[in-house]
Amino acid sequence: MRIDLNSDLGESFGNYKIGMDDEIIKVVSSVNIACGWHAGDPNVMDRTVKKAIENNVAIGCHPGFPDLMGFGRREMKVSPYELKNYVKYQIGALKAFVDSEGGTMQHVKPHGAMYNMAAKDENYANAIAEAVYEVDSNLILMGSYGSKMIESAKKIGLKTANEVFADRAYQKDGTLVPRSMDGAVIHDTEKAINQVMQMIQHNTVTAITGETIEIHADSICVHGDNIKAVEFVKEIKKRLINENINIIAIGD
Amino acid sequence: MRIDLNSDLGESFGNYKIGMDDEIIKVVSSVNIACGWHAGDPNVMDRTVKKAIENNVAIGCHPGFPDLMGFGRREMKVSPYELKNYVKYQIGALKAFVDSEGGTMQHVKPHGAMYNMAAKDENYANAIAEAVYEVDSNLILMGSYGSKMIESAKKIGLKTANEVFADRAYQKDGTLVPRSMDGAVIHDTEKAINQVMQMIQHNTVTAITGETIEIHADSICVHGDNIKAVEFVKEIKKRLINENINIIAIGD
Amino acid sequence: MRIDLNSDLGESFGNYKIGMDDEIIKVVSSVNIACGWHAGDPNVMDRTVKKAIENNVAIGCHPGFPDLMGFGRREMKVSPYELKNYVKYQIGALKAFVDSEGGTMQHVKPHGAMYNMAAKDENYANAIAEAVYEVDSNLILMGSYGSKMIESAKKIGLKTANEVFADRAYQKDGTLVPRSMDGAVIHDTEKAINQVMQMIQHNTVTAITGETIEIHADSICVHGDNIKAVEFVKEIKKRLINENINIIAIGD
Amino acid sequence: MRIDLNSDLGESFGNYKIGMDDEIIKVVSSVNIACGWHAGDPNVMDRTVKKAIENNVAIGCHPGFPDLMGFGRREMKVSPYELKNYVKYQIGALKAFVDSEGGTMQHVKPHGAMYNMAAKDENYANAIAEAVYEVDSNLILMGSYGSKMIESAKKIGLKTANEVFADRAYQKDGTLVPRSMDGAVIHDTEKAINQVMQMIQHNTVTAITGETIEIHADSICVHGDNIKAVEFVKEIKKRLINENINIIAIGD
Repeated sequence: MRIDLNSDLGESFGNYKIGMDDEIIKVVSSVNIACGWHAGDPNVMDRTVKKAIENNVAIGCHPGFPDLMGFGRREMKVSPYELKNYVKYQIGALKAFVDSEGGTMQHVKPHGAMYNMAAKDENYANAIAEAVYEVDSNLILMGSYGSKMIESAKKIGLKTANEVFADRAYQKDGTLVPRSMDGAVIHDTEKAINQVMQMIQHNTVTAITGETIEIHADSICVHGDNIKAVEFVKEIKKRLINENINIIAIGD
Repeated sequence: MRIDLNSDLGESFGNYKIGMDDEIIKVVSSVNIACGWHAGDPNVMDRTVKKAIENNVAIGCHPGFPDLMGFGRREMKVSPYELKNYVKYQIGALKAFVDSEGGTMQHVKPHGAMYNMAAKDENYANAIAEAVYEVDSNLILMGSYGSKMIESAKKIGLKTANEVFADRAYQKDGTLVPRSMDGAVIHDTEKAINQVMQMIQHNTVTAITGETIEIHADSICVHGDNIKAVEFVKEIKKRLINENINIIAIGD
Repeated sequence: MRIDLNSDLGESFGNYKIGMDDEIIKVVSSVNIACGWHAGDPNVMDRTVKKAIENNVAIGCHPGFPDLMGFGRREMKVSPYELKNYVKYQIGALKAFVDSEGGTMQHVKPHGAMYNMAAKDENYANAIAEAVYEVDSNLILMGSYGSKMIESAKKIGLKTANEVFADRAYQKDGTLVPRSMDGAVIHDTEKAINQVMQMIQHNTVTAITGETIEIHADSICVHGDNIKAVEFVKEIKKRLINENINIIAIGD
Repeated sequence: MRIDLNSDLGESFGNYKIGMDDEIIKVVSSVNIACGWHAGDPNVMDRTVKKAIENNVAIGCHPGFPDLMGFGRREMKVSPYELKNYVKYQIGALKAFVDSEGGTMQHVKPHGAMYNMAAKDENYANAIAEAVYEVDSNLILMGSYGSKMIESAKKIGLKTANEVFADRAYQKDGTLVPRSMDGAVIHDTEKAINQVMQMIQHNTVTAITGETIEIHADSICVHGDNIKAVEFVKEIKKRLINENINIIAIGD
């Protein structure tokens, strides 16, 4: 049994520092690196790619909307053609740093509002899948389990990685409980870890309304925003190791 | 005998159109495509790369400073490390569109203030040469004849292309007469064409002060800003063909 | 009888020129000047404000979304608090140029997607009305007739200006026929002028489905995108003058 | 005897937090608020203006270059006309938030590279002074003692505030020892406080080479970057109070 742990990295910008990149990179197996649109800049990208290679962690591209002021978290009604080109641009920009270091880009995982919109909207999902496929058909597209993005990726012939969340509750249709609703975030570490174990060992998750539903987990999204978040990830990792589940990057 | 004709393309942005790209692309052998920093955007890059491939014209990357408001023409005192990363980023971004179309990137030619600063400043020249070399050591670096950029490129092991100007007067040290001085721009078409012929056939140019100085021309920079500029380029091309000089991209 | 003719101006940016500002400013009574977010820059703002004062035309602020690449025409799901601050920022920025010239700002008319979203969404409409009111309660808020923006402006105590369109067809509920539908744009000059006359003289418009509905026109939106557009506006103006309708800025 | 303590505030941006604004605002008498170009955004501006008014601290505009990625610390060779318009734009943008709260803008102090370039370059100094004067001739222009900016401000008829630095060593010509040289920054708190006292009580400073030179201090620049910096400012303030020097905003 195996699982990937992924985290968003390289979201600092210019004089602004964000995230405990140096800590979280030692715990995860894959990183999603911001590309200068919703976060990150070329200097941060250079340093983050080098750091990933030093730490033997797989590199992913984390494209976002052109909205630094909103951190890529606000929906923007761009056209599918625009979206496709935005994703290509950011894959290429990051790839230059990966190529410079003799590394390999493993996957693409869109950020924030782009990720959420493409989870539900087929045109957006297709645009992203086409962008990835056309730039490099060996890249893996990571999206939430059951999303349109995974569908579009499979249809076009891309490898996919199903992402699940340790600390978020699920609805019975397999989608996340919206943050605006009670119980959306699981604050109890033990409960979160149990959810992860159930997902990996049984390919199921218990919905907030009690139903047991099917889910497939290739990668678990974790966060390095602060020391508490990093500690939480270390707890998950310890349990995974105890249960003889290997933590391996999706592409390995 | 052979020469390359190069022109800056893809400098439109969003709703803003600039340059007669569709006309000039039919006349030149190489194009330098803006990468979304001083000009251009991902949609324009996509369309321009496709256009270049359709017209069988060699593709170059045209990186600039992060200054859309100043069209990359204003000096910015970035550090060499920053400059290096800015160039890598833009090469990668454009490369994604070239790779998508199954094309090849031939060269890199910095834009505006970046080009001018790197012509004189060794640290900037080195930063650019290193960026190009590290991303793809097969790329050609284009710079003005006699510039630090050509020196740095040779030193690191890159192929180079010496750029010359048809309609600009030269000083006896081989540099251009600054635009602020009288006689900087050659307005007479016949005189400009004769300068080009002398450069290609004799490897010399006559300085504004009368001296004959050595120059090596691999590529002539031409403009497609307006219909008159395009007509001027057609005149040069006609003469080149009459003199049995082949117009061939630098990398061919 | 009186009417205002308004047009969007100052939408050039850096090296990029757009719109026939010098022509259209001689025909209209009010201008909406871009503030550097969806279009325009401080140099363009300075020149456009001076031009408006020279031509004795009333000045309005034309705030847009932070989306130069999309010309402010793409919906962005910002929060009402963000929207309020974005509008304040842009009013202030333009006001500095108006104050410098000893002029007066007459009105505020949001641009593109911001205008359209605030026409339907009460929270957005309130955010804009509050922004205008708090910065300067003497400003007039311009919005389409029947929009939430006009409602919010009245509620808070702002003067309002109902905007109507000469060359757009109306639905029976008083909203514009979407551009995606047949018949959305009126291409026949005579028909467009007749629609304008009916709006001003009878306070009605004939819907695309034939019904006569009530409408109140304080200002007609006209365009200076190209020479044909300017000629069309001159035709409207000629007819207005012939019918003894005075063309006067809304604030006069 | 009196002195002003000023600090740069509101330099957070979107999701990025920087500076201990809530701590330092309780210690100083004037704040310089970023305007969204080198740092800050409309939401941060709104919150910072409200905070300044609540804490009864005088408000200044802190305009910078259009270089968020470089935090406005990199020289940009803009034209004086461009610089003038950039300063006007930012004064206006901030003024909208100040006007909204019924507050008053006291002064303008340029940021980073803009401040340093205008200290030495007469054309830049004039451009800034003209911008401030034309928008509102009651504003005070703050610049380093002996700078071109102070000269230009006086010449045009603006009130001025001479800024001095507590923790920076001076050269015998009255300029700061460049950061690249040994001894540029005074790390000893007692020594820094003594320098401040000498400046206020004797209108002199001891140059790094030993000479006693004349200096006039209207305002001392202090920093709230971290807890240590805030503690240092509190030490200065304690000593000032002990010596019966009133801490009063420059405009009061």
